[in-house]
Parts: sequence; C-alpha cells; structure tokens
Amino acid sequence: MGVVQDGVQYIIRLDMQRDGLPFRKIVQMVDDLEGDIIAWDLVRAEDQRTIRDLTVLIATAEKLRALVNQLSGLEGVRVENVSDRTFLMHLGGKIEIRPRVHIKTRADLSHVYTPGVARVVEAIAEDPSKAFQLTMKRNTVAIVTDGSAILGLGNLGPKAALPVMEGKAVLFKWLANVDAIPLCLDTQNVDEIVETVVRIAPEFGGINLEDIASPRCFEVERQLTERLDIPVFHDDQHGTAVVILAGLINAAKVVGKPLESMRVVIAGIGAAGTATAELLLHMGVHDIVGYDRMGAIVEGESYPGHPQWETLAKQTNPHHRTGTIKELLVGADVFIGVSTGNLLTPEDIQGMAKDAILFLMANPTPEMAPEIAQLHAKVVATGRSDYPNQINNVLCFPGLFRGVLDSRAKRVTVGMKVAAAHALASVVKNEELGPEYIIPSVFNREVSERIAKAVIQAAEKDNVSRRLTKV
Amino acid sequence: MGVVQDGVQYIIRLDMQRDGLPFRKIVQMVDDLEGDIIAWDLVRAEDQRTIRDLTVLIATAEKLRALVNQLSGLEGVRVENVSDRTFLMHLGGKIEIRPRVHIKTRADLSHVYTPGVARVVEAIAEDPSKAFQLTMKRNTVAIVTDGSAILGLGNLGPKAALPVMEGKAVLFKWLANVDAIPLCLDTQNVDEIVETVVRIAPEFGGINLEDIASPRCFEVERQLTERLDIPVFHDDQHGTAVVILAGLINAAKVVGKPLESMRVVIAGIGAAGTATAELLLHMGVHDIVGYDRMGAIVEGESYPGHPQWETLAKQTNPHHRTGTIKELLVGADVFIGVSTGNLLTPEDIQGMAKDAILFLMANPTPEMAPEIAQLHAKVVATGRSDYPNQINNVLCFPGLFRGVLDSRAKRVTVGMKVAAAHALASVVKNEELGPEYIIPSVFNREVSERIAKAVIQAAEKDNVSRRLTKV
Repeated sequence: MGVVQDGVQYIIRLDMQRDGLPFRKIVQMVDDLEGDIIAWDLVRAEDQRTIRDLTVLIATAEKLRALVNQLSGLEGVRVENVSDRTFLMHLGGKIEIRPRVHIKTRADLSHVYTPGVARVVEAIAEDPSKAFQLTMKRNTVAIVTDGSAILGLGNLGPKAALPVMEGKAVLFKWLANVDAIPLCLDTQNVDEIVETVVRIAPEFGGINLEDIASPRCFEVERQLTERLDIPVFHDDQHGTAVVILAGLINAAKVVGKPLESMRVVIAGIGAAGTATAELLLHMGVHDIVGYDRMGAIVEGESYPGHPQWETLAKQTNPHHRTGTIKELLVGADVFIGVSTGNLLTPEDIQGMAKDAILFLMANPTPEMAPEIAQLHAKVVATGRSDYPNQINNVLCFPGLFRGVLDSRAKRVTVGMKVAAAHALASVVKNEELGPEYIIPSVFNREVSERIAKAVIQAAEKDNVSRRLTKV
Repeated sequence: MGVVQDGVQYIIRLDMQRDGLPFRKIVQMVDDLEGDIIAWDLVRAEDQRTIRDLTVLIATAEKLRALVNQLSGLEGVRVENVSDRTFLMHLGGKIEIRPRVHIKTRADLSHVYTPGVARVVEAIAEDPSKAFQLTMKRNTVAIVTDGSAILGLGNLGPKAALPVMEGKAVLFKWLANVDAIPLCLDTQNVDEIVETVVRIAPEFGGINLEDIASPRCFEVERQLTERLDIPVFHDDQHGTAVVILAGLINAAKVVGKPLESMRVVIAGIGAAGTATAELLLHMGVHDIVGYDRMGAIVEGESYPGHPQWETLAKQTNPHHRTGTIKELLVGADVFIGVSTGNLLTPEDIQGMAKDAILFLMANPTPEMAPEIAQLHAKVVATGRSDYPNQINNVLCFPGLFRGVLDSRAKRVTVGMKVAAAHALASVVKNEELGPEYIIPSVFNREVSERIAKAVIQAAEKDNVSRRLTKV
C-alpha cells in the first residue's frame, strides 16, 4: 500500500472468483468502517474470474488497512492493488506534447515537414528574431530545476522533482495558455546549471527557475540574466515576493496604515525572504528586519556562505535591532514568515503594534496555528488552502509569463513585478476587502489576465518589450 | 513577399477603403493570371476601412508578384501582407504542451500539485525507477540537435533548426503517440553537447539525435550511449539505415537475389552511409565498397579527420577495389547513394549486374534523374515523394521509439534495428511487391505499429528491456 493519506478516495483492485463475493458483503464492510462506496467498476471478466475496481471514500489510513485486510481474508479474493486518486492522476505523467497543426494529406506533410519546412528554416537563419513568430519560442518557457529544494521536502534530485514541474506546466497551460517544458537537471553545480540553461535557451521565450536551493539560486539567476536575452525568473524568490506584496497592499488598506510606514519583520531569509525584502524596499518600506537562524540580520555582522544576508544587512534594519524574535516583533506592524513550522508562540506576537498583520507561510505547518494567530492579529494569511488568505505562487507565475511572452520581454524588471502585484491586489474589489479576504482565489480566472496586461504595459514602460502590443 | 514558392496557396491581406474595391475587379485580375480564388474573408471592418484576406491558388511566384503589384496599384488599397500556407502553418510554432489531467475543483488541484504531489515526489525519491510510471518519462523523448546539418541546408544554428525539430515532434505524436521535445542546443562542441544531454536526460525515455554533422555525430552518440541508461539513436544514421535495409530486403525479393550475395556500392560515407554499411555488414552482406570524395575507401589508406572511414576501411571492400565510381560499379548489384545530386551519369551504371538496384537519396536532387535511372535498372528508390519507392526516415523513428518507450529499453541494439527493418519490409505483402513498390507509404498506419511490436520483442530478446510486455 505504500504511501497513503487520510480522508481521500482509494481504488482497490480485486481479482475474484466469479460470483464469489456478493456486493452486499462489501457494502457491509465499508459501512462498518464508516466509509462510502463511490463506484464498483468491472475491469475485466474472464471465464472463472472477475477483476473489479472498488472506489471508496474512507476517513483514515488505518480504516483503509482494515478494509484491505478484510477483503484479502475472503476466500477466492485477491487484492491486486490499492491506489489513491493522486497516484492515478500521475500515471504516465501529467503533460503531453501535441501538434498544433494537423496532417491529413501529403500536402499538409510537405508544409509541416520537408520539403516546405526548408523555407521556414531559411527565413529564420536569415533573421533569427523570426523564431518568435514561426516557432514554439513564441509561447514556450522552460521550468528549470536542479531538484535541490523540492517543495518543503529538500534535496531529492531531478527525477523526484519531475511531478512538481509537470504540475507547474499543467497550471501554466490551464491558467494562462503558456506552454511550459520541465527541465530537471542532473547537476547541482552553479556553473553547470548555468551552462546547460544557456545551451537550451534558444527555443524558449523565458526561463522559470524552480526549487533551486538558496544561496545557489541567487548566483544561478544572476549569471543567467546576464547571459541570456530572455527573462529569467526564479519563482521561489520573485513569484512569492509578488504575491506577498499583493497581499500586503490589500492588508494595508484593511488596517488603514500606509505601506511605507510599516515596520516589517521577515523570518527566513532564503529565496523567498530575500526577494520579498528587496521588493518591499523598492516599494518604500524601509523599516525591515530580516531574521534567520542566527537572529536579526544587521550591518557589521559577517555572514560567510550567505552572500544575500551580507547584502541585506546593508539595506535593511536601519535601527540595528537585535534580539529574540519576540523582542524584534515589539511594535512591528507586519510579520512575514517564510521559515519553519511553529516558530512563534502567542507571547511572541503580543507586543506587536495594533492591527498586526501576519503572513505565516511555512509549509505544511505554519509559523503558528492560524486559529490562534487570529486571536492576536487583524489579518492572518498562510500558504494553505484550508484557511482564509492563501498566499500561493500559482497566483503570479502564469499571468506574469503570459505577459512576458506577449511582450517578448528581454527580462523581468522590478517595475513588472510591482505591476503584477498591483494587478493581483486589484482583483479583490474595495467593497469585498476584509481581514479574511485580501487575496483572490487561484480559481479566479481574472487573475492571470490582469497580471498579463499589467506586465505587458510595464515591460513597454521599462523598455524591455520587443513588441508593440495593444492592451 | 520574401520567400515564395511555385504552385501553392497564398493569402494576401488587403487594407481597403470601405466599398472601394469591387470584388469583380479582383475576380478579373486573378482570372487574367489563370489563378483561382479560394476564399475572400473579412478580417475586420472599421468605420472607413475594411481588412480582408484574399486566398488564391496561383501557378508561379511571378504571377503572384504581378497580382500583388496590380492590387497595390489600386487607389485606396494597401497590401498588408502576403503569406503562403507553409508559413501560416508555422505561426506560433507547431507543437504545444497540454495537460493530460484536468483541474476543475480544488481537490483536483491538490492531487496534481501541492500538497498531493509531495507523496508522488517521495515515492520517486525512494525508487527512481518509478519515474517511468509516474512521470512524463514514460512516453517522452528528446529530439536533440546542434543545428549543424539541417536538412540539406547545412550549418544554420539552433533557432533555424527548430521548425524541423517541431515538425519531427508532430510526426512522433501523429504516427506513434510519442511525446517528443525539441532541444536545439546553442553549442557545436562534442563535449558540451554530451554534457548538456546527460544533464537533461533524467526526464526522458530516449534521446533522438538529429541533424548533427558528421563526423561529430559519431562521437556524440558513442559518449552518450556510454553514459546514459536510456537509448540514444542518431536518426540520420540509424533511421536511414533501417529504412534502406527494409527497402533492400524487398528489392532483393523483387530481383530474386539473396541479400548476402549482393555486391553493394555506397556513395557518401557520412552519417547515413556509415550506419548503412554497418547494418548491411551485420546482415551478412560482405562485398560492400564505400565511396566518398577521395574515391573508394580501402584498407591501408589513412583518413585523418574521418575516423568512421578508418573503421570502415578495415571492415569493407574485401577485394580492395579502387577507381572511379563507374569502375567501382562494374558488376555491382546495388548502388546506395546518400551523397550529392547528379553524381552519376547513365554510363556509370551501365556496367552494373543484371537487375540492378539503385537507391538515389541525395536531397533534393537525386544522384541521377530517376526517370533515366529506371531505363537501366530494375528497382529505383529515392528520397522524394514524387517518385515510387520513397525512402523516408519517417517510416522508422516513430515506431522505433514507440517500441523503445514501451519496453523501457536501456539502448537500441543492432537486433532491434534489424527487427524494425524486417517489420517495415513486411508491411508490403508479397503479392503487392514489385519494382515500383518495395516500401510502404508514410501514411500507412500499420508501419509504426508493426515496427513497435518488433522492437519490443527484439529488446526482450537482447535483454535491454526493463519491462515484460505482452505483445
């Protein structure tokens, strides 16, 4: 049975002697375990045997095991396999490559392939910028990872990273009609990652870096941005920062404080924390304190192996605050956690300013339980879908890359990120805005359209657009 | 107007003063040029202006230019753009990435992406071979090129190669439901190509090398085969060799000579010629003479910069034949040309054995005009679709990779290539076989199915299969 999870649908494949197992017996078993039968499908009937799939909704992994044991114990019944819906949805992968043109006749073939394609080849050889019109480059981004920081799970390598990258490709197409190709690299060396991406770049309109560990991610992004003429965007940094900024713009309205006046503490200065601090600085928020394992990041300290902390130490913490997280939070308006579960106790946040704002985004366990946080703060956001105000990167990357591709942008400027954050924030109307609704749902189709438009306009304004687009 | 081609459909976009241009005027113009109007579509109507697309079939590029000039000369009319169908079919690229799973509810999202995907990630981290079941690796190959030998056009770089690779991806999916991703590399250095492919390999079930110049292609393939645990198949070599062998198996039946007894001359010892010689040697054909720019390849000569010629010199030409192509062809049963247009004169082939077989595959101009060749030989095959017996790689690679993926093969053995050739040859039934029908059409859907089955069986026999498949 391997990996099981509580409260989901399972499919149990049974190989049974024909007519050996009355359905009412199964109904009884499932009923006794307080489960529900969803389906009872015939897979194959042979002379003596029948193969059926029993789909059940069952509350706990323990009850599932009990059911499987009971079924296995029946005479003439063999449990062939137990799958849950998540695994079934992954069988054979989640994406496919499909033709956009169809070949029915020899004439079609001669347009799509030889000999006709030769003229298209020659046109691009003469003017390589035509690749934007005549090839997949027009609409395709690479999702590049080295598998070193997969979700919250750590360094598991390229093959284990693939289901996440495929999932991301699904979201790209679903939400913004962007074609995205996962590239899970079998190297974790900065120079090798950079070289590899440079060599595969010609056919792409943008590079989405993903789940690359900090601090390696900063150097990879810096070098690639320097060497490529297409945008390089590390989603764990900038995607997160854009969505946090959007949430904060709306949270500021809810509490009635100007964004620039806020005192902000950011816990966890990795990819997301660093990018968030940088974006907030750009927005005019000056009183930011970064906090990580060794305490507050402060000028004068040295942080070997963490170049981003050295940079941040110079730009943030103007009052040179130090101390425990509790001490740092005294008088703070905003806590942004991209750190670890249960970092905070209720006492830690009690000294915060009135109408405190908490972003508790450690995954899967937030920095403190949201239901408790809500007792002490005005606005609470998390990374989870089972609480209000989910800060989810899915809100940014599809629309942002839609805009990048449509403007054939050379890079992603800070202006484009800010425009994306404002566009995202604007999806929540003023009359809807409230402590439990500062950020729209990932199912809101307006999100990616608005972000794309804003990104296209900002790209033109910042002179990185290669295409005049009517918005 | 740029690149135009004779005898195709063109679409002329006209920006006109509203009601300024009566349609009968256009009918008259096209008629005078002996063209046909296919369509007269409204694109956009504004207050004062109308944008329309005129689709015409017209015989020559000259007549098209005349039409465009006449239209441009009309008052109030502006020709905005002239496209032909080939270019239109390439707009925005020929392939797209599509989800195989659909997200309608939050539950779907949690199966496809976080948090559900985490369990799939963990399952693969624990057992990386599960990537074959749970990811795109199951059905995906990379089409890798360095753009150094694109079609017959030469070294035009990665962007210009892209339309060919996309076309190939279309054929992969259309003919064998294989997902293929073009990777057009921005390097032509052997080590860099190899390193790049090794690093992107984890997510693929096979590597199709394409349009990489000889002799670089041999070293790239050799190193990759050594370093990867998935098949590496240079189509210009082995795909061509398999289709030639299939044709030759059937041609041998037509002329009633055993394959092994044939005397064969191969002209053009690049990628295709080398692989063909090797495959024929494996089939027991021993009297093979390779011929290239410096004449017959013969033991004792040295060929600096052409390692494949050195190897071939030891394996072929047992009678140490030398001389002109005419001299080499005296008494030969088979001529295989993968060289240059108009290499041969009718005199060159007159000394060949009775019922000679000619494969004239130089592109787009064969080694000699097929209509003349037919006067002197029993069986003539070319690379072109406008003569009988088209030797086209499209007949091999889709089915071969279908078989490779379904058997999760570790590599492509010579046994798998021979099996593919026999399967391809077998599609032509004995009663259909004749001098003008030795090889099936690329539109015959049986081809890829038969090849796939044969490849799966051969992979099992050669112990390179990682999956027990019922055929």
